[in-house]
Amino acid sequence: MTDAAKVHTAAMLAIGDELLSGRTKDRNIAHLAQVLTLAGLDLREVRIVPDVEDEIVSALDALRKRYDFVFTSGGIGPTHDDITADAIGKAFGLPVEPHPEAERLLASYYEGRSLPFTEARQRMTRMPRGSTLIDNPVSVAPGFRIGNVFVMAGVPGIFTAMLDNVLPTLPTGPVMTSLAIACPVGEGDIGGPLGQIQKRHPETAIGSYPKFDGHRYTTELVVRSRSEAARDAAATDIRAMIEESTTAGARPA
Amino acid sequence: MTDAAKVHTAAMLAIGDELLSGRTKDRNIAHLAQVLTLAGLDLREVRIVPDVEDEIVSALDALRKRYDFVFTSGGIGPTHDDITADAIGKAFGLPVEPHPEAERLLASYYEGRSLPFTEARQRMTRMPRGSTLIDNPVSVAPGFRIGNVFVMAGVPGIFTAMLDNVLPTLPTGPVMTSLAIACPVGEGDIGGPLGQIQKRHPETAIGSYPKFDGHRYTTELVVRSRSEAARDAAATDIRAMIEESTTAGARPA
Repeated sequence: MTDAAKVHTAAMLAIGDELLSGRTKDRNIAHLAQVLTLAGLDLREVRIVPDVEDEIVSALDALRKRYDFVFTSGGIGPTHDDITADAIGKAFGLPVEPHPEAERLLASYYEGRSLPFTEARQRMTRMPRGSTLIDNPVSVAPGFRIGNVFVMAGVPGIFTAMLDNVLPTLPTGPVMTSLAIACPVGEGDIGGPLGQIQKRHPETAIGSYPKFDGHRYTTELVVRSRSEAARDAAATDIRAMIEESTTAGARPA
Repeated sequence: MTDAAKVHTAAMLAIGDELLSGRTKDRNIAHLAQVLTLAGLDLREVRIVPDVEDEIVSALDALRKRYDFVFTSGGIGPTHDDITADAIGKAFGLPVEPHPEAERLLASYYEGRSLPFTEARQRMTRMPRGSTLIDNPVSVAPGFRIGNVFVMAGVPGIFTAMLDNVLPTLPTGPVMTSLAIACPVGEGDIGGPLGQIQKRHPETAIGSYPKFDGHRYTTELVVRSRSEAARDAAATDIRAMIEESTTAGARPA
């Protein structure tokens, strides 16, 4: 699907005590951000919450009502701390029950491996009524979509694979393209004129990122826009500003 | 300060378009999580928002009212996209103005380097009235504390250094200690009994983390508690459960 007019918004909800205790470094947020940006969707907010039902419910409710799509990670495994499906059912006011297709998939998977389809494993088939499955090519137990919410695993390899399966079903928008310009002086030397350039080019978002190599400061300037013409016009002004600031006697530092 | 009774809660607000576009991978969240956990503070929630004033204000208001402390990263440099100080002033209903001590520090720093104290650089002295400074040993421009909010830089080296300066001023609590137990079978084999063990040991939080080496599943079980006795009692039950599940014919997979 392509809809050149509308830019869809998205949020992420990362679920898990281990992300907040420092035991696990999240790797899914940056991946989702990159993938959505390339697809022309706007990731607008991320929240990380613990494995506590009320916290998941209230964060999910805030995000799903405000943004076009919400992507969650974590909490869909077979153990007692995997409570994402129940929390999402509660947020939507839907009963959570075994999904017949998920049951078939997992029963057949465990049968093929001569493993018992334990009560714990059966937990992974529980989803809010009306969910559709998200394929898991890594370890079979599926994620699910309910409404505008995509519920995926926290293990990065599985999250990535599930996201690959979700992406083709999303409406893409005009892609945000960016252009990086190395600036040989520090932010303090160009902050004033750069702010003026931002004002003159409202269709762009100009980011300024300081770099320090231990001796001197330089700046990386990034112009982002959904219009290539707007992006290039701002870039032209930025290059002229850099030219001026370096020839006018401002010292790199 | 040590207060053995109370565990203080904390939240983090990471600010920056670049974190949501995938351009920059956040490195501060995991660092803060580890440092706070070691200090006995509970990081309960993290939000990432873009460089948009209303978004920063509303996220900050939600977090500062709910948790004992809030730590922010990003948006305190000299350029137009650095709007954190203004947003925080707005959230607290305080005027934002040059902080005299920050002015002295920066004026002297730039004078020493024969650099002009430009309007852009002067932006870095602006803080909500009543703020106290957070030392920046890396690049001088300070962070600040206002109320229960600690406002720090987004550049990881500076964030880390500022956090080191903040930590001794925080009340520490009973430290959460954790114990990891390798379990040679998959989550699906132990999910049921593990849930029972969690119920019997309410003073602990037992996390279950699947591992997959490409061939077989194993599980890392992590028992966390502020009481070492409670932690060890749960660990004893977990080891007995593993012993039973591996001798009872359950197959590792």
